[in-house]
Amino acid sequence: MARESVLDPRQEILRTAARLFQQQGYDGTSMNDVAAALKLSKGGLYHHFQSKDEILFNLMNHAMDITEEQVIAPVKSIANPEDRLRALIRRHIGVVLSERDREITVMLHENHPLTPALRKRINARKKDYVHFVENLIAEVQSNAQDARRGSPKKTVTPRAAAFALLGMINWIYQWYRPEGSLQEESLVQQYTEIFFQGAFG
Amino acid sequence: MARESVLDPRQEILRTAARLFQQQGYDGTSMNDVAAALKLSKGGLYHHFQSKDEILFNLMNHAMDITEEQVIAPVKSIANPEDRLRALIRRHIGVVLSERDREITVMLHENHPLTPALRKRINARKKDYVHFVENLIAEVQSNAQDARRGSPKKTVTPRAAAFALLGMINWIYQWYRPEGSLQEESLVQQYTEIFFQGAFG
Repeated sequence: MARESVLDPRQEILRTAARLFQQQGYDGTSMNDVAAALKLSKGGLYHHFQSKDEILFNLMNHAMDITEEQVIAPVKSIANPEDRLRALIRRHIGVVLSERDREITVMLHENHPLTPALRKRINARKKDYVHFVENLIAEVQSNAQDARRGSPKKTVTPRAAAFALLGMINWIYQWYRPEGSLQEESLVQQYTEIFFQGAFG
Repeated sequence: MARESVLDPRQEILRTAARLFQQQGYDGTSMNDVAAALKLSKGGLYHHFQSKDEILFNLMNHAMDITEEQVIAPVKSIANPEDRLRALIRRHIGVVLSERDREITVMLHENHPLTPALRKRINARKKDYVHFVENLIAEVQSNAQDARRGSPKKTVTPRAAAFALLGMINWIYQWYRPEGSLQEESLVQQYTEIFFQGAFG
């Protein structure tokens, strides 16, 4: 298979493992399967990762790196909060639909076994992202309130709105088909409109 | 443990299996584990279910039964489409948060192995529910359009709106904690408002 660039070996192992986990399940995939798919000796694989758990943790961690690099970092420089939120929606949908990253980011959402210590580290990163979205929504709400000259909108909290938005977007992997009729640009526009104005605006 | 009523044995097996799958993973749970947790002989368990796959399929099927009984059937008699949609949101959130049903309905969303034939049957039922929501949203949109004297709102399609709504609601299991500050009634009101008016209404 042609690759766009030479990957570092750890990244290549993670991508291959992610693909196998998707195809045959996490528990249905052994370290031997991963080594065989990479044409690596078992020793070669263990040189990089001691266990399947370690691969799973690094996969989830890498998925959070992708979110930070592709979503959080690029939007941080956008001064206007509403523009920043619109860019976040677009970029987060982009990551979910990315053919390259899909098999990795989906690992964040499945209930696979991690040791409590590693689970805690992943959950802390997930929570940081929720808080980033929550704070951004609070900023946009506060601007919208100023524009209405202070008439407060108290019914929707930034926290519930953040969970609603992340649910809409992260759920896409459950139904999206690359060959389907609902494609990225249309999805970005419609989801943005639903979140800002509702489905019946 | 006290039970509210005597369950039929198949239902009791499914509930126990669902709990074990949540606690120790689908692949980490054997038919022996299920039998032991129920104080059943292995033969007693196999009398009801031939394999773990069969349990998984029946669990998912039962989760769809719950959705039909708790969400679809009760809202069908509501004449006004907007009221019907509001009731659907409330009831679907109720099912997701239900302590009794949570471990069963969550099985619908995890990527566990089913044979293609069984997978197809579950997917067909999931699709029926998506279409029910989609048609209901189309009805509400069409009423909203009549109220605006025909100025059409073409940007949000019923299909994208249905996926957005189901994503918001089904995602709740990823972050909801019974002891958390965001509780059912508040969640129903906020999610309904976001879906109808947006997060900044």
